[in-house]
Amino acid sequence: MSNQPNQQKQQTATAADGITPRATDYGQWYLDVVKRADLAEHSPVRGCMVIKPHGYAIWEKLQRELDDRFKATGHVNAYFPLFIPLSFFQKEEEHAAGFAKECAVVTHYRLKSRDGKVGVDPESELEEPLVVRPTSETIIWAQYKNWIQSYRDLPLLINQWANIVRWEMRTRLFLRTTEFLWQEGHTAHATEAEAREEVARMLAVYADVAENVMGVPVVRGHKTEGERFAGAIDTQCIEGMMQDGKALQMGTSHYLGQNFAKSADVKFLSRDGQLEYVYATSWGVSTRLVGALIMTHSDDNGLILPPKLAPIQIVIVPIYKSPDEQARTTAEAQAVATELRAQGLAVKVDDREGLQPGAKYYEWERKGVPVRIEVGPKDLEKGSLCVVRRFVLEKEGESEQDLRKRKKQFLPRAEAIAGMPALMTTLQKELLARALAMRETKTRVIDTLADFEAFFKGDGGGFAWVHWAGTHEDEDEMAKRFETSIRCIPFEDQIPEAARGAGTCILTGKPSAQRVLMAKAY
Amino acid sequence: MSNQPNQQKQQTATAADGITPRATDYGQWYLDVVKRADLAEHSPVRGCMVIKPHGYAIWEKLQRELDDRFKATGHVNAYFPLFIPLSFFQKEEEHAAGFAKECAVVTHYRLKSRDGKVGVDPESELEEPLVVRPTSETIIWAQYKNWIQSYRDLPLLINQWANIVRWEMRTRLFLRTTEFLWQEGHTAHATEAEAREEVARMLAVYADVAENVMGVPVVRGHKTEGERFAGAIDTQCIEGMMQDGKALQMGTSHYLGQNFAKSADVKFLSRDGQLEYVYATSWGVSTRLVGALIMTHSDDNGLILPPKLAPIQIVIVPIYKSPDEQARTTAEAQAVATELRAQGLAVKVDDREGLQPGAKYYEWERKGVPVRIEVGPKDLEKGSLCVVRRFVLEKEGESEQDLRKRKKQFLPRAEAIAGMPALMTTLQKELLARALAMRETKTRVIDTLADFEAFFKGDGGGFAWVHWAGTHEDEDEMAKRFETSIRCIPFEDQIPEAARGAGTCILTGKPSAQRVLMAKAY
Repeated sequence: MSNQPNQQKQQTATAADGITPRATDYGQWYLDVVKRADLAEHSPVRGCMVIKPHGYAIWEKLQRELDDRFKATGHVNAYFPLFIPLSFFQKEEEHAAGFAKECAVVTHYRLKSRDGKVGVDPESELEEPLVVRPTSETIIWAQYKNWIQSYRDLPLLINQWANIVRWEMRTRLFLRTTEFLWQEGHTAHATEAEAREEVARMLAVYADVAENVMGVPVVRGHKTEGERFAGAIDTQCIEGMMQDGKALQMGTSHYLGQNFAKSADVKFLSRDGQLEYVYATSWGVSTRLVGALIMTHSDDNGLILPPKLAPIQIVIVPIYKSPDEQARTTAEAQAVATELRAQGLAVKVDDREGLQPGAKYYEWERKGVPVRIEVGPKDLEKGSLCVVRRFVLEKEGESEQDLRKRKKQFLPRAEAIAGMPALMTTLQKELLARALAMRETKTRVIDTLADFEAFFKGDGGGFAWVHWAGTHEDEDEMAKRFETSIRCIPFEDQIPEAARGAGTCILTGKPSAQRVLMAKAY
Repeated sequence: MSNQPNQQKQQTATAADGITPRATDYGQWYLDVVKRADLAEHSPVRGCMVIKPHGYAIWEKLQRELDDRFKATGHVNAYFPLFIPLSFFQKEEEHAAGFAKECAVVTHYRLKSRDGKVGVDPESELEEPLVVRPTSETIIWAQYKNWIQSYRDLPLLINQWANIVRWEMRTRLFLRTTEFLWQEGHTAHATEAEAREEVARMLAVYADVAENVMGVPVVRGHKTEGERFAGAIDTQCIEGMMQDGKALQMGTSHYLGQNFAKSADVKFLSRDGQLEYVYATSWGVSTRLVGALIMTHSDDNGLILPPKLAPIQIVIVPIYKSPDEQARTTAEAQAVATELRAQGLAVKVDDREGLQPGAKYYEWERKGVPVRIEVGPKDLEKGSLCVVRRFVLEKEGESEQDLRKRKKQFLPRAEAIAGMPALMTTLQKELLARALAMRETKTRVIDTLADFEAFFKGDGGGFAWVHWAGTHEDEDEMAKRFETSIRCIPFEDQIPEAARGAGTCILTGKPSAQRVLMAKAY
């Protein structure tokens, strides 16, 4: 049996390297998880984060999953400039107004040494200031004007992976930062119907990645007029629920109509020989998704990662007391790793010296590695492996001993190795199931303001299905009173059966055709 | 046999969509190739380019080749902020001086509508201006200060994929643009020896990618003091030769000593219990490599791509006159594509209607697809395929007919399909061989200024191996007289045997221990 000298220490971690429990302070818990898992940190540049290697590796896996799906749906990647001339913003007024308050602006192009100190050279002022892209519609559509002449050039299906800057006053690692990484799809179509199809197709891709890769269930729907992307006719979104019951917008897909085609003057010759404006979409997800991942699955012991996004899926720790045991268990750990890698799994052997096994368990647990394998001298004798899952689904009324037994299993070597891909599939599914169950317990169908207030008071709340027929001002009132907003007007199939049908608005009493999703949000 | 109605047209392309021959105007030829292959174009933002899908797909393949090698040598990726506070530049003087003249500076963070026009909000001026990264040493080392305490934290081997801005007055697509994409490795080591090993290791990775992936032979060596990276103690580089005989610096690897560790105050506790400054390296290659690729291999018919970087390796064109023939040849094209894809090849079936086969050949030739397969009704009858290579190595004294025969072969179907991976390997090797041969013909061992002048006069020139013992001022004089520079002080094994050994400086007559590589350069 493997020894676990630090198992006890793990339960009583000091504040210095510990994690604040969710129940004590959810916000601090999130920051602690990010820090202990070594995912990201603040930089000296206001509002900008540094994505550390473990955090970036998760983003890379997410990128690959998304990019494969973009390419499978006919999209290609390209790259457009970081800088947007100020005049471009003046062309699409509504769009400009939406982003004006958060634009970083380049005004000079040279530094100069004065009195031995480096400063901005005042003589290098630009004739036209350049905005650091807060999104790329304007610069991309200026280019599309040259790329689109006829219906033969359509659809144009392009995606860009890029960094984005939106000046934020209150930032939170991954969830809201001044600079972030994202992808932005920008497509052009000959008809409204095709463009609207594209919007739906990409929202479905996002929902697929959220649920089947990240293990985060989402509600799909339309944003209200007030929450739409600046310049869009329809903004569709996926909304996830974090463990504190708050909603997180995880991705958006916009139908832009002919707005950008008109401001950039992009016309095409249709099959009928008519000159028409092109129909546009845009859609994006960002490094915010890493925040969603953390907030949905992690626990008071640190990060929990779904196998599909775990940079390390299995860590193997050799256990020993003597140099002889060290040699034998380390060799076995390497042998097991080789067999697991041959099955396409991402495996790390942690053979660092001078660190107790318990300290290693503790580290990899905080970093979210789905499975740990311990290899001790007794395991070698018995031909067994000790397989420890990062988490198990809790069963009602189960004793702690039984739970621990399911979490940590001694299996015959061959069985453990052969069963690992299936275990990964199981863990992937269980995370989604666990997140779904969490969402269930924090979701209510609510018909009165009193019930609404009770549900959302203090730190409480979750998803509320309510009838709504209010104005934009009424939405503001709800925000002021309850800190809630309409997360989306859901597609009909997204509404729980018990909540379907018509009713009366929770605030105004006016008739409402269907319920909307209300929640506090990040 | 396949019909080729547009083959003739191809030879007499109009200027409107044609390519200027290299012999007529090399600079225009380059721009024409970039344009006709749809790789990139200028944007309305001064000096910034748009990388179009075909160009970006090549960059993606190059990224994958590089990234795989970085990871295989123990590096991990991370992401650091786009913006660098101005004060960071003041810490490392020499570094700051090197980049001061090309820095884009963010001074404001908000726009405002005045008199119905969007402008920069003067009230949003930043207390400290932010420089858009021209390279990331300063911001990264500020972070490393928190990451490195002990020798256990070393080596720290991190790479970043990012966009970079250096304000350029004269730009050229891919080769020199104000914004470009690159990777920058930044590593920290406990000893000088380890850091210098890293510098050599990464230069070897770059040379491997240049020669064995891009098919571009390179000379490896050290930069002279005047050409070193600002803040480096040693800059090593790989230099390729373009078809006009000019050199192109394709990648650099820097030994930074303790300069950045000192300016950012990064010390570590050594094994001996001493507090010491860390030793640093940095290394990078950029989208400039796509320019090198184009300039090395392409011909007057357009782009030529090595199979390892070709987004499409094989294009299959069905040939037909009747709807029945169309159905049968298209089905066969799809079947052949399926079999080729099963071998891991990137295949496109060009079944677009309303375009003559010749027009398709012309387009894919300009886009550099290594192999075209034509499938006509006669091929179906005979069970053969017509396999056309984008290029063949020219043999001395060979008739045009024989050359065409080698370029276009009718092969039994099974043989053509089974032989395709080997053909890709052949084409990959032939491109390197062709580039090597081209370099040979434009390389001279030169011992007198008169010979030097004769070699480089007008548009002539190439690589000149010369003895050198001049000062920095002497280098400037050579630049003024001949437009040449010392591309590198080569590693000894890089010097051709006939050029090895000591001699006297070509300009000053002083003794010189070994020759250097001189050339005109991009």
